[in-house]
Amino acid sequence: MNSPADSVGIVTPQVARFGQPLTLACGRELPEYELVYETYGELNAQRSNAVLICHALSGHHHAAGYHSEEDKRPGWWDECIGPGKPIDTNRFFVVSLNNIGGCHGSTGPSSTNPETGRPWGPDFPPLRARDWVHSQARLADYLGIECWAAVIGGSLGGMQAMRWSLEYPDRLRHCIVIAAAMKLTAQNLAFNEVARQAILSDPDFAEGYYQERDTLPAQGLALARMVGHITYLSDDAMANKFGRDLRSGTLEQGDEGQVEFQVQSYLRYQGSQFSGSFDANTYILMTRALDYFDLAREYDNDPVAAFSHARCSFLVISFTTDWRFSPERSREIVDALIAADRPVTYADIAADEGHDAFLLPIPRYLDVFHAYMKRVGEEP
Amino acid sequence: MNSPADSVGIVTPQVARFGQPLTLACGRELPEYELVYETYGELNAQRSNAVLICHALSGHHHAAGYHSEEDKRPGWWDECIGPGKPIDTNRFFVVSLNNIGGCHGSTGPSSTNPETGRPWGPDFPPLRARDWVHSQARLADYLGIECWAAVIGGSLGGMQAMRWSLEYPDRLRHCIVIAAAMKLTAQNLAFNEVARQAILSDPDFAEGYYQERDTLPAQGLALARMVGHITYLSDDAMANKFGRDLRSGTLEQGDEGQVEFQVQSYLRYQGSQFSGSFDANTYILMTRALDYFDLAREYDNDPVAAFSHARCSFLVISFTTDWRFSPERSREIVDALIAADRPVTYADIAADEGHDAFLLPIPRYLDVFHAYMKRVGEEP
Repeated sequence: MNSPADSVGIVTPQVARFGQPLTLACGRELPEYELVYETYGELNAQRSNAVLICHALSGHHHAAGYHSEEDKRPGWWDECIGPGKPIDTNRFFVVSLNNIGGCHGSTGPSSTNPETGRPWGPDFPPLRARDWVHSQARLADYLGIECWAAVIGGSLGGMQAMRWSLEYPDRLRHCIVIAAAMKLTAQNLAFNEVARQAILSDPDFAEGYYQERDTLPAQGLALARMVGHITYLSDDAMANKFGRDLRSGTLEQGDEGQVEFQVQSYLRYQGSQFSGSFDANTYILMTRALDYFDLAREYDNDPVAAFSHARCSFLVISFTTDWRFSPERSREIVDALIAADRPVTYADIAADEGHDAFLLPIPRYLDVFHAYMKRVGEEP
Repeated sequence: MNSPADSVGIVTPQVARFGQPLTLACGRELPEYELVYETYGELNAQRSNAVLICHALSGHHHAAGYHSEEDKRPGWWDECIGPGKPIDTNRFFVVSLNNIGGCHGSTGPSSTNPETGRPWGPDFPPLRARDWVHSQARLADYLGIECWAAVIGGSLGGMQAMRWSLEYPDRLRHCIVIAAAMKLTAQNLAFNEVARQAILSDPDFAEGYYQERDTLPAQGLALARMVGHITYLSDDAMANKFGRDLRSGTLEQGDEGQVEFQVQSYLRYQGSQFSGSFDANTYILMTRALDYFDLAREYDNDPVAAFSHARCSFLVISFTTDWRFSPERSREIVDALIAADRPVTYADIAADEGHDAFLLPIPRYLDVFHAYMKRVGEEP
């Protein structure tokens, strides 16, 4: 396989080890940790062209390019990262990591707890978005990056980007927040609860100690993913993609055992694929971090007070049919930024694809993103 | 306890036995069956004032009044049925039954299969809405009702009401369709699939033979209900009812084991209550009947062609924040009825409560419903 011309090509994950304990928001300490990350493009001499990609719920470090010649699919944000793409690797040095708590190589529930010699499992400390931000700041130190040109994220990644703007106001020039929210709604919380209950009630979850017991809560994790997946897609996107098309059987047949709708078989497939590649304790940890994220909580629940600590400029993007983090949530961010007198650009992109749109090559989305990043890259 | 003045008071369920086999849409026969039902009000001498209530997914025959002096809660549609209420029992003879396949007394998966002497369980024949309609027609015969003044239903009940208008055009004068749809969307199908998978993957489901094995798929059924429940409420309703209020712990605490949002505890409670009172095989059967309902399928997928077989008048009601069966779905019904030259009254009711609104005392809803039913009752 030859990579397409606008691909970053073959990339190799790297690992950074941090021996200093990291004090977490919960008050506990992570004694040591590793972060797996990838970089695309070259760091310039002034070290001023670095951008950080923060991943969403089920994301990881592999955002662009391929891991081998045989790799069939590129990284999860390959539409947006590469030569000539919105995050242009001819211009930027892109850093993409797997967060702590993750299950793709960074220290997380499936790693060994140095104090016990056994997997952390459910005893891995609970994390907040700010813990990720702090660990990412250490990665910046490690890479010699004093100030990011931009910190960029979609969904839960956008929440980390916003938290960056408050925790380290002098360490980023731009904050790019895509399809995110300042906090979850009751409905968001409800869906996360169903997802977690699906995992927790799977007997193979074994209260989180499945790794030691050599079981896998595959059914629970698959169900959790199915619920999540519905919320990533819009009603229209599902209608366009599947409608009421049948995968097998006919509706003239009475016996339901033989009748299956495409959308149902698709969801089950997505669920089972996911459960083979993701860790259940990580899923629980990530959804809890989402639940607890509340940008303005410690600023008297006043987002304007929160954002008045920020020093960077903002790009906020939402998608019209996103019902997980709807455009209304983005407008709340924008309104608070304006009231806090922060420079902000906002685009609400007409798209049928729901929350998933942030991963897809929607022309106006890519154009807006590209134009903004071009300005970022041209700054002195 | 004294019943309120506008209550039908204490009611006693009755049972009708049908010895004649019922041929089902799937081609199989139900050799015999019982229907449990309640009636409120008096049948007039002309037998012209009878109305039929068709229940929704988790409904049953107990729609109004109380079963005993100690009963704390009235029937599920007590807001709409009673003296002076929209379905005025001073005027109408109201019949409310538990459908076959149900789990509240009518023949269903937990009944004994006469051929084996054991519970039907998962071998109970699959049902379509039309099977319910046919069994309800036999109940009408049994009660000596040639023509209903109205057949009324919300949600899946509305689908049965519409099917009545096509299967027995001369046996109803009015068809009242509340918060329903002519068929499910891909998103509806997807949620039903998640609910079923939750049940099917519960080891205690035992492929549906839990009754014989003396297990109960309580976790799976609770999860299914949690998913369903989210779709019954609007995002706004959940926000108003719960917001991000905490039930225990504080967000300053890091440890998530002690932090719980109200909405999460509420959902879990709803799930566990439901799983103690509903049958899993019935839930699967009912959601499949919903999935397969497609009013116009056998009329070349042309709803106008379908409704041109109807002879009755229609009242269609939707609720602005209902995202399970949105107002758009009701407008499709109304458009088809107009094109088919059927008399139709339509009201889209502003309500925050989502799909659940059809069960709630929303003044304009009750007013519209009441006014329409008054006209029905005054017909010669």
